[in-house]
Amino acid sequence: MMKYNTGSGDLTNWIVEEAAFTPKFQGKCEAIFCQGNGYMGVRCATEESYTNQVRNTFVAGTFNKFDEYDVTELPNAADVTALDIWIDGDLFSLDKGSFTNYSRTLNLKTGEVVRSFEWTNRAGKTFAFAFRRFMSLADLHTMALHVSITPLNESAQIEIQSGINGQVSNSGAQHFHEGEKRIFDKQHLQMLQQTTQSKITFVHNATHSVVAGNETVGSRFAMDRRKVYMIYKADVQASQTLTLEKISNVYTTRDLTHEHLSLDELRSASIADLIASAGRGYNALLAESVAAWAGFWQQTDISINSQRDFDQLAIRFAMYHLRIMTPAHDSRMGVGAKGLSGEGYKGHSFWDTEIFLLPYFTYTFPEIGRSLLEYRYKTLGGAHKKALENGYKGAMYPWESAWMDDGEVTPVWGAADIVTGKSTKIWSGFIEQHITSDVAFGVWQYYQITGDEDFMERYGYEILLDTGIFWASRLEWNDERQRYHINEVIGPDEYKEHVDNDAFTNYTAYWCIENAISYYQKLKAEKPAVFARLNEKLSLDVEIPVLEERLAKLYLPQPTAEGVIPQDDTYLGKQIIDLSKYKAQEHVGSIFHDYSLDQVNQIQVSKQASVVMLMYLLEHKFGPEIKRANYNYYEPKTLHDSSLSLSTHAVLANDLGDTTLAYELFRRASEIDLGPGMKTSDHGVHAASLGGIWQIVVCGFGGVRMVGGKLRITPSLPEQIDAIQYPIYWQGNRLNVSVSKQDVSIVNETKKSAITLIVKDNEYTFTDELTVHL
Amino acid sequence: MMKYNTGSGDLTNWIVEEAAFTPKFQGKCEAIFCQGNGYMGVRCATEESYTNQVRNTFVAGTFNKFDEYDVTELPNAADVTALDIWIDGDLFSLDKGSFTNYSRTLNLKTGEVVRSFEWTNRAGKTFAFAFRRFMSLADLHTMALHVSITPLNESAQIEIQSGINGQVSNSGAQHFHEGEKRIFDKQHLQMLQQTTQSKITFVHNATHSVVAGNETVGSRFAMDRRKVYMIYKADVQASQTLTLEKISNVYTTRDLTHEHLSLDELRSASIADLIASAGRGYNALLAESVAAWAGFWQQTDISINSQRDFDQLAIRFAMYHLRIMTPAHDSRMGVGAKGLSGEGYKGHSFWDTEIFLLPYFTYTFPEIGRSLLEYRYKTLGGAHKKALENGYKGAMYPWESAWMDDGEVTPVWGAADIVTGKSTKIWSGFIEQHITSDVAFGVWQYYQITGDEDFMERYGYEILLDTGIFWASRLEWNDERQRYHINEVIGPDEYKEHVDNDAFTNYTAYWCIENAISYYQKLKAEKPAVFARLNEKLSLDVEIPVLEERLAKLYLPQPTAEGVIPQDDTYLGKQIIDLSKYKAQEHVGSIFHDYSLDQVNQIQVSKQASVVMLMYLLEHKFGPEIKRANYNYYEPKTLHDSSLSLSTHAVLANDLGDTTLAYELFRRASEIDLGPGMKTSDHGVHAASLGGIWQIVVCGFGGVRMVGGKLRITPSLPEQIDAIQYPIYWQGNRLNVSVSKQDVSIVNETKKSAITLIVKDNEYTFTDELTVHL
Repeated sequence: MMKYNTGSGDLTNWIVEEAAFTPKFQGKCEAIFCQGNGYMGVRCATEESYTNQVRNTFVAGTFNKFDEYDVTELPNAADVTALDIWIDGDLFSLDKGSFTNYSRTLNLKTGEVVRSFEWTNRAGKTFAFAFRRFMSLADLHTMALHVSITPLNESAQIEIQSGINGQVSNSGAQHFHEGEKRIFDKQHLQMLQQTTQSKITFVHNATHSVVAGNETVGSRFAMDRRKVYMIYKADVQASQTLTLEKISNVYTTRDLTHEHLSLDELRSASIADLIASAGRGYNALLAESVAAWAGFWQQTDISINSQRDFDQLAIRFAMYHLRIMTPAHDSRMGVGAKGLSGEGYKGHSFWDTEIFLLPYFTYTFPEIGRSLLEYRYKTLGGAHKKALENGYKGAMYPWESAWMDDGEVTPVWGAADIVTGKSTKIWSGFIEQHITSDVAFGVWQYYQITGDEDFMERYGYEILLDTGIFWASRLEWNDERQRYHINEVIGPDEYKEHVDNDAFTNYTAYWCIENAISYYQKLKAEKPAVFARLNEKLSLDVEIPVLEERLAKLYLPQPTAEGVIPQDDTYLGKQIIDLSKYKAQEHVGSIFHDYSLDQVNQIQVSKQASVVMLMYLLEHKFGPEIKRANYNYYEPKTLHDSSLSLSTHAVLANDLGDTTLAYELFRRASEIDLGPGMKTSDHGVHAASLGGIWQIVVCGFGGVRMVGGKLRITPSLPEQIDAIQYPIYWQGNRLNVSVSKQDVSIVNETKKSAITLIVKDNEYTFTDELTVHL
Repeated sequence: MMKYNTGSGDLTNWIVEEAAFTPKFQGKCEAIFCQGNGYMGVRCATEESYTNQVRNTFVAGTFNKFDEYDVTELPNAADVTALDIWIDGDLFSLDKGSFTNYSRTLNLKTGEVVRSFEWTNRAGKTFAFAFRRFMSLADLHTMALHVSITPLNESAQIEIQSGINGQVSNSGAQHFHEGEKRIFDKQHLQMLQQTTQSKITFVHNATHSVVAGNETVGSRFAMDRRKVYMIYKADVQASQTLTLEKISNVYTTRDLTHEHLSLDELRSASIADLIASAGRGYNALLAESVAAWAGFWQQTDISINSQRDFDQLAIRFAMYHLRIMTPAHDSRMGVGAKGLSGEGYKGHSFWDTEIFLLPYFTYTFPEIGRSLLEYRYKTLGGAHKKALENGYKGAMYPWESAWMDDGEVTPVWGAADIVTGKSTKIWSGFIEQHITSDVAFGVWQYYQITGDEDFMERYGYEILLDTGIFWASRLEWNDERQRYHINEVIGPDEYKEHVDNDAFTNYTAYWCIENAISYYQKLKAEKPAVFARLNEKLSLDVEIPVLEERLAKLYLPQPTAEGVIPQDDTYLGKQIIDLSKYKAQEHVGSIFHDYSLDQVNQIQVSKQASVVMLMYLLEHKFGPEIKRANYNYYEPKTLHDSSLSLSTHAVLANDLGDTTLAYELFRRASEIDLGPGMKTSDHGVHAASLGGIWQIVVCGFGGVRMVGGKLRITPSLPEQIDAIQYPIYWQGNRLNVSVSKQDVSIVNETKKSAITLIVKDNEYTFTDELTVHL
């Protein structure tokens, strides 16, 4: 059971609480209480173990491929979070005996998780337990755990086994060699494990300090297969406290910061770091991390004055996760669709990054936005490989992306088909091609918002040109229509496979080619050195005329008489069925209990926003009537079976003036992970949805939009929200935007200027002055 | 808590019962209630899951090597025993709520395990649960599970998830590719998994029949990573019963019986078998298996009339396990040191086979004894490889043996060293060389007991000659003593590494060379065709003169003035410490909590029988005074930290006339797995110890011994045992031997003859007549 109003005083709307523990719902808080720092992410599995628990530790970018049949994935690294606690010889578990005052809190401000309860065992002895842990934001390699156990009414023997456990796997797939185990000075544990295919060595270290009353508790150490651990045993008197402090760190040979070290040097350095950290102790290490978090929140915090406090918590929750999932420290790495919070989607990056996450970073932490786009630049090798394999030119980005040169890593087989009983083939890796436009869009948007010419010259222009070249090569001539088609694709609506002329794909491809042509012209005219280099590399003078010829003849699906743009060539002719049963379901994908994917393909039902998404991204291309017509047509046919769907609909509803609906969609989007539904986040948090929450607040209610290279701020608050305040960066200027129902104030903190706009008749009036002044 | 007197009537002393369930002791019954048939072994993990449970399914001979750093091992195959049972939405576990009348029984007569209890959940609803399961002895590929759940006081919703789960591993080492999953007819589950290195494909099938009251329960199916499963959900009224019957089978491409099929054919055939089996149903399949077990028991059952009923149960328990662990169906496979009951020792075969297990089979199921020795013949390739790698000639058997040509597979690294904190190096694979003599001894003993000339001509002579050649090449000339030494070895006492002239090794090597010479002479004289073939293969005419020269000068440690044969060149000069602390410990290996292996090497402390073992095997070489002197010297220094130790000491004590001590050692040996100690069998049952129990009864109390090619029966019953009755085969004759304190009767069932000997003055009097008549 989740509780959202636990924080008070300074911590009001900063605390997420799990106020009751139910093992069947443990996946929820494992994922949403995930801790990390972008370097690593550790799922918040409880220290004691339960059946069906998922205990994950991921280090960003350390991809490994289990075998030739599998795709590469982020391996689940050796665990240091599990403790076996034996009370009077019985393994402690909340399933046994009874407990009261259970509370587990995630403090979004500090990144610390605290869990406490009183537990009475079957012999009637009661104990107070408290667990605290964090992954440091100040030292990306370090995590710390603090446990205290106090027998309240009778003395007890307490034994704790704690160490480094490499028996974990990714649902059975083992990515590591067993490796070498070592205990230094009878207390400092070390385990080295190399990944089987990518040959990345992980160095894990852990050390403990265990005290009962005022006395150090005696220990033994032991090794088992893939395990090295300590055993502490003490007789603890009633009202005495046993405390265990466990400091751990992890380094890998993929770390940029340690590339210059040999493995032996890395082992020694990491053990030295461990001993130094342990010397400072849990509270001092926490203070360093909290200071780093304070810097983060100072730059990013948003205030929402809502009738529902949850909204304030939800936006902070979203930004907390956006930070811990993102490898800001290393531009060779992308963001996984589940961040680092679960095995779902294997740590791969999707279009989620550019379309859902990137706007947050571009507007708030431009340097992180840049890093994520540099990652795409560094994966161009894989994109070229994919294009060549498919008979195309240029950069054809992989639908799922992992390490730099991996290319396409989408798995080929998925869940069971209801009709055939076979695994369903996943076609996205072959034919979901709009990802290439999405990446280009992210680059262009970043450039427009930041004006980062250095980025563009080094990386950005090349991506824009190379993706344009891909699209031109991808087109297929249709004799009948005398137009270029894009056949046999999947658009954003993945419930329609093998369609021709998916509107989203065709329109964004058009945009992409058009953009490439225009930057070609600009570079040629304005930046001869850059042009020369790229012309040499990409044969622009040969390729761009082709783009020009094809662009003019690229087919763009046109609105029907009712203003509806056909999602693809056949969608509007398909069967319409009653979808209310599936729209009402708590679990996504329920339509597959009744229909196979082939059957769903024949119905006017969509997984998520597709035409609607197009109208959000290229909003200047479509007027309000067209937007409304399409929204009204497609939304009822959309099951929102993707977490990417709600935020887009929310922003569009807000754009269309339906703030009531927008707020309702915001509410639903903000509850996907954080809400009271206890089964939604088992495989990890929904990264894109969290980015979408930020977009609803800032781009939807807050009205921020980059249109044609200009900043437009047209806020529109729903009834439930009285005011919001958010920071954004625009062209290097930090703006603090305050929106209330009375006025909008924009303070340019960089230039120390400010403007205020007054609301009239519930409509904000803007002048060009805004953009001029900025 | 174990209970041993549960069986009554026909089942008296056939039932082992776990009368209380304590999760921390679950390893005990997982191992000792293991079920199987030599083709496969399935650990008896409970259907519902608990923390620290070890769920194993092994198919004999399917070795796979996880990576280049690991040794090959028996992979843990996909599991079909686990069920997730949800009662009113809560995952069922005995940790929750309360339960009464818990009972889990292993019926040694039928191989069936039955578990039942009443469980009351936290909402106060009470349910009667019953689980039954068996692995068929009639159809080696089939296993069956029968579950019934009855709400006793209130109706409840019951949901069961059951299928095939390939997420299991060997403590983290994953041996299988994910493989293909398939559901036929929305009900028959199939999963194909290939081992990663040895490329053996496992075909798993499972199907269910689920009924509540009289109605079939509706189902859904699902796939997950490495998993395919069904979901059944029903509302069950109070006093109605939900029953689930699950029939499964497993085949592999290593199966000899299916070698002629393509994988597609094997898939189809196995599904057809599954459907046919499911059609017959649990009870019919069980009846077929029970009939097969009846045949087994008819051939092997032993009766022990003891003051302690446990003894009767214990000998049956031993024979039950000897049967289920032994791949009698396929002579390409050996027996693992833990059988198929756990991951311990990785499924590898040791000297345990020839010295501890083989006598049981040779005397009781000679065809199985032959099969196990054929396995050694088939591993000669590996033995030659090992000899060559070490610079020797002939057959140097691997200390640990797996698939035919694998050669040495002993792991190199073991547990943590208390002093250095590093993994201890395991030297056995390099220098524990007596295994070669042990194999030869097993061959010779089998031949003497069975007279199986066909076996000898095909396989046996070659092994005896080839091992003799190895030993001659292995000797090292010592100038000082003008004798051949065997330096730098480990004898059976593994607490002494790198010793010179280990008595067991030198004496058995001597025996081995001597034997080779004598069979060379015999073949040359009596079997010219066999001789010619082997002479060609092994260059006997060149090699044997070398053996003759060396044998004469091979150093054999001689008794001291007190009659003690030095265990090795330095043992008797080492420090003597007080071992009482370690002898009193329940857990083996406790000396390593205080001393490192290097330190233990410097103390007169032994892990297990070594000189004493020598006197058991080559008993005619040593008189009773020497035996007594050595027993009295070494036993107090022996920690019996190996389960191989007690039975040898028991037989020797009996030989020496100390039947009281012999019975005490028998009691301890028989309790190693079956006894009330709940932590002894976690990694699997102790195969050698189980064979040793049979040897104490038949060779110790029953007095059976082959001496110089003749059968000698000199029984000697301890006070606690009034009578025993056992069958043995001697030279193709089935003998039924009845021993009481009054007389010994031997019935030759084959020749329909019988003799009875009368006991006088508590001593049995034998004449040569016995051997003459047989």
